Amino acid sequence: MKRVFLDHNATTFPSEEVKSAVKEFSDWGNASSIHGSGRRARSKVLQSRRVVSELFKVQPGEITFTSGGSESNNIVIRGLIERLKERGRAHVITTVSEHPSVFKTLSIINENDPDVQVHFCPVSKDTGLNYDFIEKTLKEHPVGLVSVMRANNETGEVFDLKRIKSLIDENSGGEKIYFHSDMVQTLGKLSIDLKDLGVDFASFSAHKFYSLQGSGILYHKKGVGFDSQITGGGQEKGRRAGTENLLSIHCFGVQLKKLPQTGEKVQSIEKLRDSMESKLKEKLSGVSFMAQNRERLSNTSMALIEGIHGETLLMNLDLLGFEVSTGAACSSGNPEPSPVLIAMGLSPKEASQSVRISLGWETTQEDIDKFVENLVNIVQKIRDLN
Amino acid sequence: MKRVFLDHNATTFPSEEVKSAVKEFSDWGNASSIHGSGRRARSKVLQSRRVVSELFKVQPGEITFTSGGSESNNIVIRGLIERLKERGRAHVITTVSEHPSVFKTLSIINENDPDVQVHFCPVSKDTGLNYDFIEKTLKEHPVGLVSVMRANNETGEVFDLKRIKSLIDENSGGEKIYFHSDMVQTLGKLSIDLKDLGVDFASFSAHKFYSLQGSGILYHKKGVGFDSQITGGGQEKGRRAGTENLLSIHCFGVQLKKLPQTGEKVQSIEKLRDSMESKLKEKLSGVSFMAQNRERLSNTSMALIEGIHGETLLMNLDLLGFEVSTGAACSSGNPEPSPVLIAMGLSPKEASQSVRISLGWETTQEDIDKFVENLVNIVQKIRDLN
Repeated sequence: MKRVFLDHNATTFPSEEVKSAVKEFSDWGNASSIHGSGRRARSKVLQSRRVVSELFKVQPGEITFTSGGSESNNIVIRGLIERLKERGRAHVITTVSEHPSVFKTLSIINENDPDVQVHFCPVSKDTGLNYDFIEKTLKEHPVGLVSVMRANNETGEVFDLKRIKSLIDENSGGEKIYFHSDMVQTLGKLSIDLKDLGVDFASFSAHKFYSLQGSGILYHKKGVGFDSQITGGGQEKGRRAGTENLLSIHCFGVQLKKLPQTGEKVQSIEKLRDSMESKLKEKLSGVSFMAQNRERLSNTSMALIEGIHGETLLMNLDLLGFEVSTGAACSSGNPEPSPVLIAMGLSPKEASQSVRISLGWETTQEDIDKFVENLVNIVQKIRDLN
Repeated sequence: MKRVFLDHNATTFPSEEVKSAVKEFSDWGNASSIHGSGRRARSKVLQSRRVVSELFKVQPGEITFTSGGSESNNIVIRGLIERLKERGRAHVITTVSEHPSVFKTLSIINENDPDVQVHFCPVSKDTGLNYDFIEKTLKEHPVGLVSVMRANNETGEVFDLKRIKSLIDENSGGEKIYFHSDMVQTLGKLSIDLKDLGVDFASFSAHKFYSLQGSGILYHKKGVGFDSQITGGGQEKGRRAGTENLLSIHCFGVQLKKLPQTGEKVQSIEKLRDSMESKLKEKLSGVSFMAQNRERLSNTSMALIEGIHGETLLMNLDLLGFEVSTGAACSSGNPEPSPVLIAMGLSPKEASQSVRISLGWETTQEDIDKFVENLVNIVQKIRDLN
């Protein structure tokens, strides 16, 4: 049975180019060593850094390789918080729909550090991100850090970073307000012009873009400092100690070279996604999609299906060879409904009726047709049983 | 030209088993997903964790996979320091010969946090670790953490952890004193009986044991808590968030299965190392070896060669296909002599005359014979020139 993977926001599978790069890889030296095998290893890191900096239109020195998106997000938050406190009580703005590596990290700090106040911006199922809340908070408090994801991993909703950057600039009063964005879901889906978006920090992950687990990127704008969270050797100019994960960094570079050719893919995936949503609405009553009328990632569909339990549906689909999720993978297995959906105003019952379908480069029309057919059948059976 | 790699303390090259495992690997799912590909991914992590726990004779729940040795060391130090401060001023004992991920991390904290005092235990070139310093400090201060590496990466010197554990127990006065050891250099070289050694925490790295870069182990004794340094998803029971680096974790498990068969290798490598040192002493005047009369890792030889500059020697050897180092790889390229050697009482000039030769599983008698021949030639040429 051919399995149909529709959970690309959780992870993607390495591309053919990456699989070849893995098989051919032989430069296993320590990139810090100055002898031949060390230099060959180091050149792999430099090559990948150059690919990233050219694509992102930033300088190589503005790119630090990390172990992944969660680490990148943690570095920014933990690496800035003590510096922000030097100005007095630190005020941070983030949203209720952030990935746990931002949301939970800031929640822990908010609960435990009396010198930090985190303002959680509401995101409504009906009206999206509350930009007025951000503006009001910027006016009322000496905010030091704004951390807003570019696109949500569960609903696919895209947030308007340029609008937030304008609000920051209008309300900074001359004090630096750091602007970070978790962009982990956006590689190959949205254009990456970091200067244009106006962020000081951005986080990315290799395995969300058809490359290997174990490496991520932290973009840090030139001149913007932060405290390293792993100290020791001088790797990554002292910003992130530890022997570089060469294979994963190399493969990330190999795959990123394909970034410029992703425009067409985005469009064809969007067509597939939209046709899937139309068909599901046509064939099933009581189906709606989160953020459908706002800007979304082209590959993401968060369906709410009345009368079913997302996890039951997921397991039934899995038995038939279709892989979807009920929310963020890192909270999977947790019987509680998605905190992000609850925060957006869904009742626990509504949130429990959610299924996230996230398409990828290898998804075909046939996959989607079969998926729709099977999903409809299962939903009807479950509804008939109840 | 066949290159002879004699820098195994910087990194090792993947074994044939690991290379095969890399080529065959296909379970690229997200280990947190609950569908089929997620479950297969998760089973890879569970398998590796079981291998580690069985070999280390600890429980699976006592093992956390990290991105490497530097991260493991940072987690322990950063994850304990706030907890230690709850008891009053935090006192930490470590040594001047620790890896930078311990030494520098504790130095930064010592310099910046007035509530922490770090006591750096001397290590002398003549008499080794000053256990009396540890005892005296334990008697004089309410120490909360002792972090002493099991074996030094530069000299190979092995420290007596059981003796330190006894000192801790005799002087704890009923208060918990955490005991951490950076064991990154010891896999496959020393027996790993963590219960017997009495540590609460131990750090390991995959790429120092013929497996891939990008994964490490943190052993944490049951019941001993610490603050996570990467928070977010629930991976590793919330101890280390971020999608697991499956390939590297899987390969680490594959390679660790060979651990029980390493006894013979240790002996044959020791024979090679000892014969190399004898020959060098025989053929060259003004040669000595660090810690030669104390317990050392069987593969490590830190040579001090009068009248040469280590870096010049290294580069000349590199041209002839022999790869060695002048100290820790992560400080390579730094023209300063090794801080560890300076701390051990060598003059800057003496320290600059050092070359570390670290043998590995693939090192042959022929390699060593050729290496000695070439090293002797180069040294004589350099000496003749001066």
